Amino acid sequence: MSHSAPDVIRAKRDGHRLTGDQIDWVIDAYTRDDVAEEQMSALAMAILLRGMDADETARWTAAMVASGETLDLAGVRRPTVDKHSTGGVGDKITLALTPLVAACGAAVPQLSGRGLGHTGGTLDKLESIPGWRAELTADEIRDRLDRVGAVVCAATEGLAPADRKLYALRDVTATVESIPLIAASVMSKKLAEGTRCLVLDVKCGSGAFMKDPERGRELAEALVSIGTANGVNTSALLTAMSTPLGRTVGNALEVTEAVEVLRGAGPPDVAELTVALAREMLDRAGISGVDPAQVLASGEAYEQWCRIIAAQDGDPEAALPRAAHSHVLPAPASGTLASLDAYAVGVAAWRLGAGRTRRQDRVQHAAGVVCRAKPGERVEQGQPLLDLYTDTPEAVSGALEALDGAFTIIDTEVAPSPLILDRVGP
Amino acid sequence: MSHSAPDVIRAKRDGHRLTGDQIDWVIDAYTRDDVAEEQMSALAMAILLRGMDADETARWTAAMVASGETLDLAGVRRPTVDKHSTGGVGDKITLALTPLVAACGAAVPQLSGRGLGHTGGTLDKLESIPGWRAELTADEIRDRLDRVGAVVCAATEGLAPADRKLYALRDVTATVESIPLIAASVMSKKLAEGTRCLVLDVKCGSGAFMKDPERGRELAEALVSIGTANGVNTSALLTAMSTPLGRTVGNALEVTEAVEVLRGAGPPDVAELTVALAREMLDRAGISGVDPAQVLASGEAYEQWCRIIAAQDGDPEAALPRAAHSHVLPAPASGTLASLDAYAVGVAAWRLGAGRTRRQDRVQHAAGVVCRAKPGERVEQGQPLLDLYTDTPEAVSGALEALDGAFTIIDTEVAPSPLILDRVGP
Repeated sequence: MSHSAPDVIRAKRDGHRLTGDQIDWVIDAYTRDDVAEEQMSALAMAILLRGMDADETARWTAAMVASGETLDLAGVRRPTVDKHSTGGVGDKITLALTPLVAACGAAVPQLSGRGLGHTGGTLDKLESIPGWRAELTADEIRDRLDRVGAVVCAATEGLAPADRKLYALRDVTATVESIPLIAASVMSKKLAEGTRCLVLDVKCGSGAFMKDPERGRELAEALVSIGTANGVNTSALLTAMSTPLGRTVGNALEVTEAVEVLRGAGPPDVAELTVALAREMLDRAGISGVDPAQVLASGEAYEQWCRIIAAQDGDPEAALPRAAHSHVLPAPASGTLASLDAYAVGVAAWRLGAGRTRRQDRVQHAAGVVCRAKPGERVEQGQPLLDLYTDTPEAVSGALEALDGAFTIIDTEVAPSPLILDRVGP
Repeated sequence: MSHSAPDVIRAKRDGHRLTGDQIDWVIDAYTRDDVAEEQMSALAMAILLRGMDADETARWTAAMVASGETLDLAGVRRPTVDKHSTGGVGDKITLALTPLVAACGAAVPQLSGRGLGHTGGTLDKLESIPGWRAELTADEIRDRLDRVGAVVCAATEGLAPADRKLYALRDVTATVESIPLIAASVMSKKLAEGTRCLVLDVKCGSGAFMKDPERGRELAEALVSIGTANGVNTSALLTAMSTPLGRTVGNALEVTEAVEVLRGAGPPDVAELTVALAREMLDRAGISGVDPAQVLASGEAYEQWCRIIAAQDGDPEAALPRAAHSHVLPAPASGTLASLDAYAVGVAAWRLGAGRTRRQDRVQHAAGVVCRAKPGERVEQGQPLLDLYTDTPEAVSGALEALDGAFTIIDTEVAPSPLILDRVGP
């Protein structure tokens, strides 16, 4: 059957389901520039306003995977399982989780991205380690998975090229906020990397892309549904992102904190989420009889970390960069820290140099924010509340501006709010 | 206030009204290529699905007028009044109406277009007259209006350039079928030509763009509302387009029929609609005490026709081109012709060479269809029902295919259906 872009757009515009054939055709033709950007943006707007059901979304994702290469991990002897987070502030979970799950017997093909805006990227964090490199070939990825049990590296250009094109287009055409399109974008990259099992960490709250837990749950369900339809054993946790995870936000600062967790210390919220996601990943991978909390406490996960870093030419013992300049924000009153807004802290760290505004920007590895108190903890007037780090001291005033009104201190105690909100999956 | 394309798109996407400021900015920036095609198509889709109210649509139109030059007709001494038809099959009304209204004392600045698809264009029809030229300068237009009382010519490239760009974009992005965008497109060209009064002929039925009278009325109301909001005295007639107007479809064939009407003969439906639209135009222009039916019968309109054609270098007495080949389609049965489908006849004439598929195609001036019977008339088996004319006889089979099932012949009489369905305006 022959197709035309206006016919496909018209079908969705008028509220019809797209056929599998129409979806395959439009994604393939768009990848080959036979469907123009202005046609795809009209279709994206029609999808945003009319929706796509689970079958359409699964097929859309499969078509984006088919637009490029896929990584063949069939030869990896251990069960492959990956984790993907929708992005938050202070989210260094991947750093501790990957070695922990590898130490438990799975192979973790963690193809990651760089940060943009107020959320950081795993590759930016690891690049603060002297010598470590993010770019690996497909053969190197398979070698590290087999030999070391994990790899954290950049996705190659050839994976899901339709997604790359569409992502850039949606950004400038106000067609980002469509749950089917968001879910298809995330899952096309993960399906292309060849993992057999996948756990999603869908973050909800001020510091997350999804502010509202209801929308977060909708996204989690879409993600799990796409994975399942495409033969990947998938589940999701909904987790809170109203305050930063742990106490640090910024690349080297977060690596240091993740290493503390791997050594059995570190902030309890980071350890809690790491272990919960590890359990979920081991369940998906069919690995039973191993308790990730014990493996973490035993020091085996830390040893695994050292091996993973070294296998990508990083020196796990090397000193990390330190910022040239610091600034202390003292608590303006004594009492209980009732809230500390994730988005505001994320923006502050970004402005201090930890994040980038345009894709081509460089990040400062040492810049960021250390939270001396977490919500629920007691603070004393005049004592440090937040430490700001940067190599560019002129950035401090912008960071302080972002932090204006970002926290509340009250006289009474506050009940701790849950970190793990819900679970979606089999 | 500063604007960005994603902000404007997002506002409409989320169901908000666009501010006048946002509309002015986005049309101007699009004209200057500062808003990209893919952004405008996403906005057009959001408008199609979310709508624009009367104020937004009037402002959108004004912004498109402001994107280019306007014709200054302030110096023309007679009241200016124009007519625009949304397009039909056999619609040669402009040819007889323009000289008639000019003969009644108004100035008629009829800036017209060429045909595309199954509907013809006024310029294509007049170009079948030897010597006649469609391209006039602004000074020539003003001169002819003052001296002769009417001009039928091509719109200059500089009028409403935003509309030209947007029209081409909507065509390939399935964003044509939005009443606010259709109405704004029509009215931007008419407002830019500087007429003070305007009558719309909104056609409904199989041969029209609007198949459904309810949608036709919606369009008529949008058109009148835009004109009124922009200071042009505007009204509209809703007229039937389920069967061709008159007996001829095709360029030279239609000119011949229009001249018959101007000489007091010709098909009654063409004369009826011509006089009704003339009354509406004279009302708008504030010209009273002149009966267009009498002016038509007196021969004054025909004399006016000869002056208008001659003023654009045409020879009103010259023989028109005749087709090299003809084919007769006989009536397959005796009885009353109950229906003759406008769309099918329009497609047949198009395929015979009277119309074009791409903008750059040339039309055959002599090609077309003559309807030997109109609905309600008696036909005899084996007698000619339709005559087909073309210079390319290989086109006949495609035309006959289009006419398959295009008419019904029944045993009983049929009541005539009304030509003028409704009126919208002050």
